[in-house]
Amino acid sequence: MSKVFVSIALSLDGYMAPDGMTMRNPGFRNWGAKWGALMGWLISQQYFRENLKFGPGGETGPVNDLVRSTAERIGANIMGKRMFDQGEISWPEDAPFHMLVDAATNEKREPWVRPGGTTFYFVNDGPERALELARQAAGARDVRLAGGADVIQQYLNLDAVDEMEIALAPVLFGSGRRLFENLRDPGPKFRIDRVLDGPNATHLRYVRA
Amino acid sequence: MSKVFVSIALSLDGYMAPDGMTMRNPGFRNWGAKWGALMGWLISQQYFRENLKFGPGGETGPVNDLVRSTAERIGANIMGKRMFDQGEISWPEDAPFHMLVDAATNEKREPWVRPGGTTFYFVNDGPERALELARQAAGARDVRLAGGADVIQQYLNLDAVDEMEIALAPVLFGSGRRLFENLRDPGPKFRIDRVLDGPNATHLRYVRA
Repeated sequence: MSKVFVSIALSLDGYMAPDGMTMRNPGFRNWGAKWGALMGWLISQQYFRENLKFGPGGETGPVNDLVRSTAERIGANIMGKRMFDQGEISWPEDAPFHMLVDAATNEKREPWVRPGGTTFYFVNDGPERALELARQAAGARDVRLAGGADVIQQYLNLDAVDEMEIALAPVLFGSGRRLFENLRDPGPKFRIDRVLDGPNATHLRYVRA
Repeated sequence: MSKVFVSIALSLDGYMAPDGMTMRNPGFRNWGAKWGALMGWLISQQYFRENLKFGPGGETGPVNDLVRSTAERIGANIMGKRMFDQGEISWPEDAPFHMLVDAATNEKREPWVRPGGTTFYFVNDGPERALELARQAAGARDVRLAGGADVIQQYLNLDAVDEMEIALAPVLFGSGRRLFENLRDPGPKFRIDRVLDGPNATHLRYVRA
């Protein structure tokens, strides 16, 4: 069966996103600079630049290979309403997924088909149902929990997360949306699977113990 | 001048200590098992076992070398009152420091000299003063901020931390005392200096950027 995995960047103090990060308020508390420090390792990679049509060039090497292999294993994404809402106004028309996305939400809305192969489905009958649909769509490939933090927390609390890939960036946000909170106790168990040491982030991979 | 550094273990969800960890309540929420998962990488090392008189044997190798080199660079420790209070009832008579310890506290108390070279000084005129005394005592060696979280946060907010050594263990506590909170914004800047990939913890070293 396909795996359910998280692949995110995290600030050293545990935040997935800085406080007040919204496309509608680009100057708030300098969130753009924080986001840049969090994502700098990714934005410079050749595969990422190619996928987002940022143009040619970019780094090749083990981090780029990691980005590529992570992207290629994804058969479907699950994301929360907040992440979708931000993306809806900031992703290019050819949204950078090229596959099914389950946007877990309370909103009733018809599927939204984007050029390039991305279709957003709006699921409003719970995380288990969203996962079931994502697994069907993913086939032999894997299901990525794209975020935000609240969605990942829900699946951690269901003990439905097989793997977590965390790019830990050496930046302190001071506030924002924490990845690890609201977890049940005892929580799910993980072990270290692999560590890749990059200059701008440490790429940690955990698998269910 | 000597460096000021942090050397701690951290749960994957960012806690230095599980919730309710106190020697007076050893069964609370299974904190002992969490602490064991956090510290397992250390307790098995030959140098640590020798230093705490746990007996012969133990692992040798790069993690043991790291533990030894960290211990040998310390000229003085600074710790908070909570950490001292716990240690006072749990450390052996020959306390595992063998040097000056500034216990930052509001309590007025005479220095407490232990066999084996540890002397606890009780400093109650602020973190800058505690650091000044620790630097004097450390000489050419370095000052370690031993913890807890609140003490480290105070020095991070003074931008007085030169280096952070974090042993990130793949355990989720769910609650406890977080290392990184109550930080000013913008916070201090760090860069990745070195990563050592151990089986039970990832040894991350950051230096001031």
